Amino acid sequence: MFKLIKQEGKARRGVFETAHGAVQTPVFMNVGTQAAIKGGLSAEDLRNIGCQVELSNTYHLHVRPGQDIVKSLGGLHRFMNWDGPILTDSGGFQVFSLAVLRKIREEGVHFNAHTDGHRIFMGPEESMLIQWSLGSDIAMAFDECIENPSPHDYVARSCDRTARWLKRCKDELERLKQRPDTVNPGQMLWGINQGGTYPDLRIRHMQQIAELDLPGYAIGGLAVGEPTETMYDIIEAVEPYMPADRPRYLMGVGTPANIIEGVARGVDFFDCVMPSRNARHGHVFTSQGHINLNNAKYASDPRPLDENCDCPVCRRYSRGYIRHLLKAGEMLGMRLAVMHNLYFYNHLMADIRTAIEEGRFDAFRRENTEKFVKRI
Amino acid sequence: MFKLIKQEGKARRGVFETAHGAVQTPVFMNVGTQAAIKGGLSAEDLRNIGCQVELSNTYHLHVRPGQDIVKSLGGLHRFMNWDGPILTDSGGFQVFSLAVLRKIREEGVHFNAHTDGHRIFMGPEESMLIQWSLGSDIAMAFDECIENPSPHDYVARSCDRTARWLKRCKDELERLKQRPDTVNPGQMLWGINQGGTYPDLRIRHMQQIAELDLPGYAIGGLAVGEPTETMYDIIEAVEPYMPADRPRYLMGVGTPANIIEGVARGVDFFDCVMPSRNARHGHVFTSQGHINLNNAKYASDPRPLDENCDCPVCRRYSRGYIRHLLKAGEMLGMRLAVMHNLYFYNHLMADIRTAIEEGRFDAFRRENTEKFVKRI
Repeated sequence: MFKLIKQEGKARRGVFETAHGAVQTPVFMNVGTQAAIKGGLSAEDLRNIGCQVELSNTYHLHVRPGQDIVKSLGGLHRFMNWDGPILTDSGGFQVFSLAVLRKIREEGVHFNAHTDGHRIFMGPEESMLIQWSLGSDIAMAFDECIENPSPHDYVARSCDRTARWLKRCKDELERLKQRPDTVNPGQMLWGINQGGTYPDLRIRHMQQIAELDLPGYAIGGLAVGEPTETMYDIIEAVEPYMPADRPRYLMGVGTPANIIEGVARGVDFFDCVMPSRNARHGHVFTSQGHINLNNAKYASDPRPLDENCDCPVCRRYSRGYIRHLLKAGEMLGMRLAVMHNLYFYNHLMADIRTAIEEGRFDAFRRENTEKFVKRI
Repeated sequence: MFKLIKQEGKARRGVFETAHGAVQTPVFMNVGTQAAIKGGLSAEDLRNIGCQVELSNTYHLHVRPGQDIVKSLGGLHRFMNWDGPILTDSGGFQVFSLAVLRKIREEGVHFNAHTDGHRIFMGPEESMLIQWSLGSDIAMAFDECIENPSPHDYVARSCDRTARWLKRCKDELERLKQRPDTVNPGQMLWGINQGGTYPDLRIRHMQQIAELDLPGYAIGGLAVGEPTETMYDIIEAVEPYMPADRPRYLMGVGTPANIIEGVARGVDFFDCVMPSRNARHGHVFTSQGHINLNNAKYASDPRPLDENCDCPVCRRYSRGYIRHLLKAGEMLGMRLAVMHNLYFYNHLMADIRTAIEEGRFDAFRRENTEKFVKRI
């Protein structure tokens, strides 16, 4: 399902087939946690800004509106009117980051919902049932996300359990897909590598989960507070043990520089809330560095957010207008800023793909990694 | 500038020319107080839902971002990327409804801003300067909006002052439009009839302001708490004194039923925040009556908001999805609901226009006035 078109160093230019179309990689997935992109973007907006894959969340959609409602309305694609590929996160990360009073057992995790505190149990089978009901194209394995740093022996035991959970995820999704009321018969399961910041555990766990021969593998549990260099080191350590003929997904990462460095280390899929969250606070990515629209100097600036950008926002609106909307609390301000930032990310990935195709990714990396960090 | 195409009883089907195109009347103007429609709608969204005239507010844009910024960015049309007709309210209503510690003098009104409390003075000349800077197509006169009911002698004195203010508005706008840096040379001034709930004062004031021979006249100070029947009575009383060859605008009105009844009494222009405000609270207008999306029965309802509606929302999204978005606090929910409700209003006006053209407005009125009040 994953076809490698071109490779330069570790950087890979590929195509990945899903039940809802092909994904050109490296790719950035646009995050719509609750089946909608923050800032009021519609599925049509997503198409207009070059989004290839939409990402929603198992835990959030379980809590509200509930997977049965989404399934009864035809599954997630029809629910949100997005007919392109969808990846659903497993809920594992949210159970460990949002939920309170959790108890981890071999069978799964007991915890209280972050909304109204009602008691929930989620294990591999529950996560698969929810994702199967949602009908995403890529379901993610239910895993334990540990804090960094955690003790080596705890991480080792956690990884073993996550490996056992992965086998249960695989069995359960295969079983569910036999049901005649399956929303998406083409749904697949990807595994998630854990192991904290310990290269030995990362490698051992990767070897364990590679045995299940899944169509894709993610690196989870990074970008959760550890130094950036540690993250890069872990990717470098585990990458040689990831199947070369399967896509690799670095979960929750990151800045434009992080993404370029991830691609340079052999990663194909990325996702992050940063572009939409930053946008809502007036922080905008541009080809020249990032700008803070809250700065008074932009109040009467007639230029588009990025003078080199061809997105639907930059073709129509000025910095001054968008700044006014954000200051006045008008939702349109957030929507325009989010659209631009997501376009910037999607467009960055297109530039990366072209650079690899043309055998000049190394030069692209040297030119751009630092540029995007600059504040202008 | 106003051409009457057809009349049925008092109901009028007309065309009104502005510097940014013709307006087919009767028309509902879509309210974008702060140079943006609430709910995150862009100017492109407005085009897609049949908006003819956008309405922004002098007071709000004076407070934030300030008319000089809008002017420096090319005026309101360019600022918000809307090249159709724009009407700006004068700020009079907001000065009397939002501002605190106001003092009314012959020269104008001293008051504190509702945002940060800073002291502002606004009179006819200030209102004209702001609207001239914004470059709207229709500038509204600066008037005093009294409460209903107010004592007869106070209303009489207020009307006389508002009539004197109108003359100052006219002189000032004519003076400003001589300036070479005029944003919109085609900008025009409309007068506003006041007089509270007193037919005699309404008529006297209308006779006063008709003498200024303005290109349009509004009925202000209604729909501010008085009974609906009183509002209809006042329109009926004053309408014979409004120039028949000029458009009439009933400010801030209203429900679909109010609009149909207004048209039946000779009104051509309407505006109201009701469709967008209701939408944001999950209250949706449909051809069968209005629905409250907060009702649990809509959670798994696969139908569009209105099964007879052809708007961009009803063609793509279910009640269940939009209800989920509203419950989850996703901005997209508000945006979709607002788009539908505004489309409903714009489409209602198109139906009214067709009914008048075809000489069956009276039947349309009988069939529809009650229907839209029903809760389904």
